[in-house]
Amino acid sequence: MAEATANGAAAVAAGGDRKAAFLQIYVQLKEDLLRDPAFDYTDESREWIEKMLDYNVPGGKLNRGISVIDSYKLLKQGNQLTDTEFFLGGALGWCIEWLQAYFLVLDDIMDDSVTRRGQPCWFRVPKVGLIAANDGILLRNHIPRILKKYFKGKPYYVDLLDLFNEVEFQTASGQLLDLITTHEGEKSLSKYNITVYNRIVQYKTAYYSFYLPVACALLLAGENLDNFLQVKDILIQMGTYFQIQDDYLDCFGHPDVIGKIGTDIQDFKCSWLVVQALDHTSESQLKILSDNYGKTDPTCVEKVKSLYKDLNLEKLFAEYERASYEKLISSIESQPSKEVQLVLKPFLEKIYKRQK
Amino acid sequence: MAEATANGAAAVAAGGDRKAAFLQIYVQLKEDLLRDPAFDYTDESREWIEKMLDYNVPGGKLNRGISVIDSYKLLKQGNQLTDTEFFLGGALGWCIEWLQAYFLVLDDIMDDSVTRRGQPCWFRVPKVGLIAANDGILLRNHIPRILKKYFKGKPYYVDLLDLFNEVEFQTASGQLLDLITTHEGEKSLSKYNITVYNRIVQYKTAYYSFYLPVACALLLAGENLDNFLQVKDILIQMGTYFQIQDDYLDCFGHPDVIGKIGTDIQDFKCSWLVVQALDHTSESQLKILSDNYGKTDPTCVEKVKSLYKDLNLEKLFAEYERASYEKLISSIESQPSKEVQLVLKPFLEKIYKRQK
Repeated sequence: MAEATANGAAAVAAGGDRKAAFLQIYVQLKEDLLRDPAFDYTDESREWIEKMLDYNVPGGKLNRGISVIDSYKLLKQGNQLTDTEFFLGGALGWCIEWLQAYFLVLDDIMDDSVTRRGQPCWFRVPKVGLIAANDGILLRNHIPRILKKYFKGKPYYVDLLDLFNEVEFQTASGQLLDLITTHEGEKSLSKYNITVYNRIVQYKTAYYSFYLPVACALLLAGENLDNFLQVKDILIQMGTYFQIQDDYLDCFGHPDVIGKIGTDIQDFKCSWLVVQALDHTSESQLKILSDNYGKTDPTCVEKVKSLYKDLNLEKLFAEYERASYEKLISSIESQPSKEVQLVLKPFLEKIYKRQK
Repeated sequence: MAEATANGAAAVAAGGDRKAAFLQIYVQLKEDLLRDPAFDYTDESREWIEKMLDYNVPGGKLNRGISVIDSYKLLKQGNQLTDTEFFLGGALGWCIEWLQAYFLVLDDIMDDSVTRRGQPCWFRVPKVGLIAANDGILLRNHIPRILKKYFKGKPYYVDLLDLFNEVEFQTASGQLLDLITTHEGEKSLSKYNITVYNRIVQYKTAYYSFYLPVACALLLAGENLDNFLQVKDILIQMGTYFQIQDDYLDCFGHPDVIGKIGTDIQDFKCSWLVVQALDHTSESQLKILSDNYGKTDPTCVEKVKSLYKDLNLEKLFAEYERASYEKLISSIESQPSKEVQLVLKPFLEKIYKRQK
């Protein structure tokens, strides 16, 4: 195991700029990977990897990654983290960002997407093309390199490996479910219902976006994850709520605020809205939905949106949001550990009634 | 950790049909995966995975996988393996076959290949398409599932995880090197030389095909891999020799014997033959090579083959083969452990002067 080097990052973070301190750790991890003795880089391949990492890893909101550090601090009774602790929390946070980058690079290929985070998808960059699939694999392979360098020898090293393996498996399984439900065979709304929806969201999004950061922090704090099954359950519920908001905002959010123009209707997505619509339609309304869902024609899209309004899905969502929030708050407050409550609450507060 | 169930597979194997006994273990592992409690399968997704596994995992020669069992037995002074030992050796053997399937599914997408093992590539199967990229990911994710179910709790569990992670990283890095050297940018022979060649082969092929099976057997036998760096080196050399044979047979092997028509010349591959040709040409011959290498026109292919003959690459290969064999035998015989010698020799004998 290598010594953690953080250059007083914890102090910088205490001064306020957590994101800058977190980004400093990225620079260190990238340097480590480019000097990894397990592969004999040529100049060309080293440059490729550096460019690929800079393009795909640090450009997101970094919420998942930074929340590992925040949660770790709260689990330590809010005590200031030492430089080493800050670095280790940040390194695990970056492993989640690497995992996210890996999924996004491959998802964009599978979905034939055009842009991501305001720039062309990596596989669309000239000279990259389908080499992007292997780059995705490499991003995934960087995670155990980082874990081995900084965590081998720690008592929780094997738990970290198991955790990342299990969450990756669940995410890829959720992605399969989404792909064969949404893309494969005839486009048919008969496949969509709330059970299918919940299962896709739980596995594809909630595990890695909500459970994984907290699980990393718990391991750093020396906890046994088997003792936190309720916490896992709460985080999965929160992840589901988050995705339902996403689906709602895709249709009802303001493009200027959410930063993109939603296309779930055109893309025949298994969105919470269409699932609710299917559950609340008359037979004649069902025909409108079947005839117009998944079409790019703006008239078709308008008909679907108008049906959503007729069904008062905005009100249904507001009710869901309130009920979901109350249930989550009550579950959180029933947690025996005050620290755990303090970890979970900011996750919920950050997303409750979000507009983007 | 689950109990190993082998249904007397070791006895079957002792009776001679190792491959049948090995395939029996595949059936068990597949059943385990389809009942994995970490994912809540729908009928449709379970059927998908079963079909995907049957299509991609067991259809190869299975040499890599079976060699784990053979090597394990030799390391145990040739004593008959118990049913449990046979099962565990087989399970690790199958992990290597799963790894291989994962690489092949993704490589075929990246290379836009048509057939694999005598059937259409998985991504070309109707209704599969680019879902194959996620299936590749799932194949990779099955490995830690198998390892966790049967090896968690063993003293070498963490070493197995580290081993598979490191070898996968090396293979994907070798693949990157191959892709950016062969596919990316202008096709230029100036990028090809024996150093580049050796590096690609070592990382892309030798680690997982030759080192990994023996490393698995060593861990099963309770050994520390740090004490076997020379063995690793010998196996990497053997893997390189194996790939050079492959390149030779692609051009000079008989299509009826090797089971395919070679296309390395047409595909502008960084083959050992072109690297040797580049090293032995006059300036006028270099022009023939540059003008004709990487073209599908049969006249061009013929000109390259004719140049190979003029340069007497067949003789050069025969010399390389003999020298390589002698060096390997001498390295093997200098190994202090008789068991290790007995493990390494069959690997070499199986490939020496192979015609397919």
